[in-house]
Amino acid sequence: MHVMIIGAAGMIGRKLADAIAQGRWPGTAQPTALTLVDVVEPTAPDGLPFQPDVMSIDLSQKGAAETLVKARADIIVHLAAIVSGEAEADFDKGYAINLDGTRDLFEAVRHAHNADGYTPRMVFTSSLAVFGAPFPDLIPDSFNLTPLTSYGTQKAIGELLLEDYTRRGFFDGIALRLPTICIRPGLPNKAASGFFSGILREPLNGKEAVLPVDRDVRHFFASPRAAVGFLLHACTMDTAPMGHKRALTMPGLSATVAEQIEALRRAAGEETAALIRDEPDATIAGIVAGWPQNFDTTRAQKLGFQAEASFDEIIAIYREDEMGTGS
Amino acid sequence: MHVMIIGAAGMIGRKLADAIAQGRWPGTAQPTALTLVDVVEPTAPDGLPFQPDVMSIDLSQKGAAETLVKARADIIVHLAAIVSGEAEADFDKGYAINLDGTRDLFEAVRHAHNADGYTPRMVFTSSLAVFGAPFPDLIPDSFNLTPLTSYGTQKAIGELLLEDYTRRGFFDGIALRLPTICIRPGLPNKAASGFFSGILREPLNGKEAVLPVDRDVRHFFASPRAAVGFLLHACTMDTAPMGHKRALTMPGLSATVAEQIEALRRAAGEETAALIRDEPDATIAGIVAGWPQNFDTTRAQKLGFQAEASFDEIIAIYREDEMGTGS
Repeated sequence: MHVMIIGAAGMIGRKLADAIAQGRWPGTAQPTALTLVDVVEPTAPDGLPFQPDVMSIDLSQKGAAETLVKARADIIVHLAAIVSGEAEADFDKGYAINLDGTRDLFEAVRHAHNADGYTPRMVFTSSLAVFGAPFPDLIPDSFNLTPLTSYGTQKAIGELLLEDYTRRGFFDGIALRLPTICIRPGLPNKAASGFFSGILREPLNGKEAVLPVDRDVRHFFASPRAAVGFLLHACTMDTAPMGHKRALTMPGLSATVAEQIEALRRAAGEETAALIRDEPDATIAGIVAGWPQNFDTTRAQKLGFQAEASFDEIIAIYREDEMGTGS
Repeated sequence: MHVMIIGAAGMIGRKLADAIAQGRWPGTAQPTALTLVDVVEPTAPDGLPFQPDVMSIDLSQKGAAETLVKARADIIVHLAAIVSGEAEADFDKGYAINLDGTRDLFEAVRHAHNADGYTPRMVFTSSLAVFGAPFPDLIPDSFNLTPLTSYGTQKAIGELLLEDYTRRGFFDGIALRLPTICIRPGLPNKAASGFFSGILREPLNGKEAVLPVDRDVRHFFASPRAAVGFLLHACTMDTAPMGHKRALTMPGLSATVAEQIEALRRAAGEETAALIRDEPDATIAGIVAGWPQNFDTTRAQKLGFQAEASFDEIIAIYREDEMGTGS
């Protein structure tokens, strides 16, 4: 079983490679080869019983996809993407990676399929950005694709291509729309969504954090560990029950900022929670107002995808996975 | 006002050019220039008060879109497409024209926009094929994009690109999902949907017609004249009330085959209706079973799009427009 991770230097890609190295692969056929690909050279995880291949390749370069497909990996996990803010700021770059890079990869697999029958499992990370306001409070699985950003447009097109290529039999595809990942480890970033992680991560590390929106703002979350779990399940599950509908909104926890802070208070005390400073920012509040709050993910749950049920769990996972402490 | 029709040699493109030549343009600013483009050289309509430009260009050729955009037409009506059956049979050709040709056109406009502020009205014909079964009986405007064919996938991607390019301000786009056009003039074709026109057209011309499905089959129709009306309205309407949602399912008439035949009987008598021979074809019946039956098109109607309310009207239009007789 040969697994290729494209976008292996990113946060989720690194955690997925670590999970494989730690023996958390859920299938009966364990990986016997691992290829890690990113535009910057990815770091190989510790503990693998074999030497992984590590490749530094820019998916937007001509011929890059063909090079990757030569490895004939059984499972391709395609995480590489220009993130939302950058795709909106740089139209060409967003389309070059998120649309053309994805399509080049799918096309290279199709040509290999036509040449020798190659038909890998293709796991593609999509985004809640395929959905745009106005939303119902609880967004059903049947909600239509209504992106309001270039990033969301690119991800929606990726989903459509993945479903057509799968229906045609060129590969066996699954697209996962990930909730907002929380608590993101590492340094604060400038993403509009960054504060959702920051207001927990910074206080847990004894630092002040700024909250730019009202505490009654509601959003949809899953931990990095849950995201890795989604990917591992997507790599190994039986896809037959999905039929032609291959894009799935992943389960998550719908919670308000106040509920996040209550969980922080329960986990680390009043003094820690007091490190959050309310500093309203109308721009960020405006962006966040257009985001979804909750999804009905019955379909994904029936197919075996699982996320956290409380922010207490999400905080405990951060402490275990990032701070080396038990909950 | 310079109007460019891409796909001007097709049935709808010719009728649209004829309508302009006959003075049926609904806007206050009348066309003063017309460019007709197709892969085969289009025929100029009679009666235009000026000489149109006629161009034979294959949109899938490199540089073709740039050539077209040089004309700086105020309105571009993009009808050119590989039809459903061919796009399913020839994967490369379908994507080359329906996806890459459309995207090349949009990209050429974007580059012109960035160079000199060019911002045309862009009217794109999409298809009900962006929707796939299972359907509710009455499909709402909020139904999601669920194509089950390569053609439907390509049209859905065209809609997504059109909405992103419009939101970005590169052009002012509208995508029209046309109902099945009925009664199509001309010879019978091999399209699975061909019988919907054939069972009326052939008897009206004194010929036998074959009906391959049950008479209780229901589908969604508009006349060629209504389709031209949709396009003329899309060329000239105020798009501001549409906001970001630029893809519209056009109004149509939901009717059963039995209702079609009843209208034929009313219009042309029992002997004419008796020219229809039931000859069940399981393959065609299977394809048609996956097609939608009815749409809620309140949104398009509120925006001023209108279709027929009965097959009596549709038959009268065919007689007027194609047989040179009044109803």
